[in-house]
Amino acid sequence: MSGRPLRIAMLGCGVVGTEVARLLAEQRDDLAARVGVPLELVGIAVRRLQRKRDVDLDPALFTTDAAALVARDDIDIVVEVIGGIEPARALILSAMSHGASIVTANKALLAEDGATLHDAADKHGVDLYFEASVAGAIPLLRPLRESLAGDTVYRVLGIVNGTTNFILTRMDETGAGFADALDEATVLGYAEADPSADIDGFDAAAKAAILAGLAFHTRVTIADVHREGIGDVTATAVASAREMGCVVKLLAICERSADGRGVSVRVHPAMIPRSHPLAGVREAYNAVFVECEAAGQLMFYGRGAGGAPTASAVLGDIVAVARNKVKGALGAGESSYADLEVRSMGETVTRYHVSLDVADKAGVLAQVANVFSAHDVSIQTVRQSGRGDDATLVIVTHTASDAALSATVVDLRALDIVRDVASVMRVEGEETD
Amino acid sequence: MSGRPLRIAMLGCGVVGTEVARLLAEQRDDLAARVGVPLELVGIAVRRLQRKRDVDLDPALFTTDAAALVARDDIDIVVEVIGGIEPARALILSAMSHGASIVTANKALLAEDGATLHDAADKHGVDLYFEASVAGAIPLLRPLRESLAGDTVYRVLGIVNGTTNFILTRMDETGAGFADALDEATVLGYAEADPSADIDGFDAAAKAAILAGLAFHTRVTIADVHREGIGDVTATAVASAREMGCVVKLLAICERSADGRGVSVRVHPAMIPRSHPLAGVREAYNAVFVECEAAGQLMFYGRGAGGAPTASAVLGDIVAVARNKVKGALGAGESSYADLEVRSMGETVTRYHVSLDVADKAGVLAQVANVFSAHDVSIQTVRQSGRGDDATLVIVTHTASDAALSATVVDLRALDIVRDVASVMRVEGEETD
Repeated sequence: MSGRPLRIAMLGCGVVGTEVARLLAEQRDDLAARVGVPLELVGIAVRRLQRKRDVDLDPALFTTDAAALVARDDIDIVVEVIGGIEPARALILSAMSHGASIVTANKALLAEDGATLHDAADKHGVDLYFEASVAGAIPLLRPLRESLAGDTVYRVLGIVNGTTNFILTRMDETGAGFADALDEATVLGYAEADPSADIDGFDAAAKAAILAGLAFHTRVTIADVHREGIGDVTATAVASAREMGCVVKLLAICERSADGRGVSVRVHPAMIPRSHPLAGVREAYNAVFVECEAAGQLMFYGRGAGGAPTASAVLGDIVAVARNKVKGALGAGESSYADLEVRSMGETVTRYHVSLDVADKAGVLAQVANVFSAHDVSIQTVRQSGRGDDATLVIVTHTASDAALSATVVDLRALDIVRDVASVMRVEGEETD
Repeated sequence: MSGRPLRIAMLGCGVVGTEVARLLAEQRDDLAARVGVPLELVGIAVRRLQRKRDVDLDPALFTTDAAALVARDDIDIVVEVIGGIEPARALILSAMSHGASIVTANKALLAEDGATLHDAADKHGVDLYFEASVAGAIPLLRPLRESLAGDTVYRVLGIVNGTTNFILTRMDETGAGFADALDEATVLGYAEADPSADIDGFDAAAKAAILAGLAFHTRVTIADVHREGIGDVTATAVASAREMGCVVKLLAICERSADGRGVSVRVHPAMIPRSHPLAGVREAYNAVFVECEAAGQLMFYGRGAGGAPTASAVLGDIVAVARNKVKGALGAGESSYADLEVRSMGETVTRYHVSLDVADKAGVLAQVANVFSAHDVSIQTVRQSGRGDDATLVIVTHTASDAALSATVVDLRALDIVRDVASVMRVEGEETD
């Protein structure tokens, strides 16, 4: 072990940062062996110096002056685990301009303004690694960016939010309603006091933007992502999914259009067949299913959140960036050459499960079928249950555009014999085998 | 696109090679954009020039003189898809000595003599990439080598052979015996005419050696791997596994010893709980489950064999190596600093499922229990089924060393009241959640 140590500065020391600092200390010798030189944590920017932290660190490492820390000229790697847009962005840009490579877990910033970061990394000749920003510990971005670099990705289907997956798992397995399942998630610590970032799909949408960028070599921001949360998923819809051999999951979907020139990027609840590998992903686990031309179907599964899993991903990036530094090289940078057009939700093509409360009268099915037909939405199956005032029609369509389906639903609502359009949910994930 | 093209030579043009050549041609523009310069296939060494190939290639590319091809000084990357030990090893070493980086799918060679290849790559300053050698298209080696480089791997459990997984899936789902399931696999093309490399576990053992090396930063060869195939797995054992909520899988297991200074590397059939993520891996799919200190449980799932999936992995490596070449850099090389001791099977600690045909007499259980106790093997559950001459005792143990269990079985066979030790199978995979 001869070379000079690599010097690391860390911005933020919350749950993830504390764990990163602990691992850097505990695995000091192993990390030095893997990188070729020691890794030295030389500064940690925090908001409050006095806060009690769950790791034994030299108090002299801490500073409240993050701007001064990233402006030091002797820092090789800056680890950003503050989160949010500012001051994270300004600090990262400053660190890059002073020659530091960046490891960040900041999905919000990457999804909102990744282009600025990538451009700055390119301009200053530094690395920008962000494995921890999506699906926590699951090694996912590196495979997409590197292992599949010779393949063509058709579709990415991800369960990338543990809170919503926990809630939907409970609803599926116990028949609970959304509110009760959310309560349980809150009690068990899977949901935050204000759970809207999770249940309204914002968290998943940020991750979808990052995944789409890597999978399709195209810049995608969170503003491009169509987003629907799970707040409207009813116990009835979950039961209906179960009856047709499906389970409801909140999916982040990044999909190449049939013409190959566009992508659809969206987050919404969807029914998937129980035979699909994603169907078995329970509780707060995450998994990302990737369909490629040559590689076929792949799935990556693991813990999507939590201090230790996220820290593992950060450490992996630190080692990669450090190895690059030792060799005087850079890792694979941003690849956005394909520059595909992000298509609107209306242009997105998928299948639909539509549940209608209807009057049980002669000619109901014909009237309903006429409405679908008028919008060129082809029906795959229809099932009627109940009689009289409680009759329900459940319709599953073949693939149709979201615009056509939306127009169909508007016209269905206008029918006298349709009391209510009880639920509309997309059906995703072809049966495997 | 300015730089000079990178020149690729390929050794072998079978199923995988043909697909690699096809993808290099079809995705020419995309690959050039991703790498920064064009990739040019300049030579293909084959045994027979006249063989009909499923891809349209300039006949002038083909040569039967592989030695001359790798000795050319203008080759940047050599792709080896011949397989086997020689001449693959000699050709790879020659290519390295002439400055070419290597992409190979050759698990046999890496598992038998990876050290020679790694040392040569190091000496000549070239890359050696081999993602396709384990689990086909599943990006697995790169995550182990890079993403988890900051973590500590405790255990790797892999379903890494599609043929045996297909057979065991059929036995589990239809109740078929081994011979019938093998016949079906052969008819469907999942098993080769001589299936011994698969069913006797040689293929999985080679992959286990490669996985262990990466996971534990330790050189492991196939000679270090304890190996048992699936030929002795009976329909009764599969049914017995089902009764206890388990499924039988052929597992490649790489495990850090409790003292942290040794590793156990082995391939054998094992019962795993149906709640384990590996239990749902059906048919010819592969999956590798990794348990880490910080990252927790991860799983990688996909197609483990086949021309296109394997070619996808080869292409990913070609792009990675090519990007390195463009930057004048090298990827992460071999990491074998930990140099853990590979422990014998006798020292390996796991749980066991033992099925005994016994005489249904008073005191049987006491005698049997005494034998386990004499070897310090603790019993977790006992279940007796049948009466009289057909009585069966099924015993599941707590963790014990393989040596203690083997000695127990020897003594059990010597008991008068034990007619037969019908089956002994290890139980792996703690219940998740």
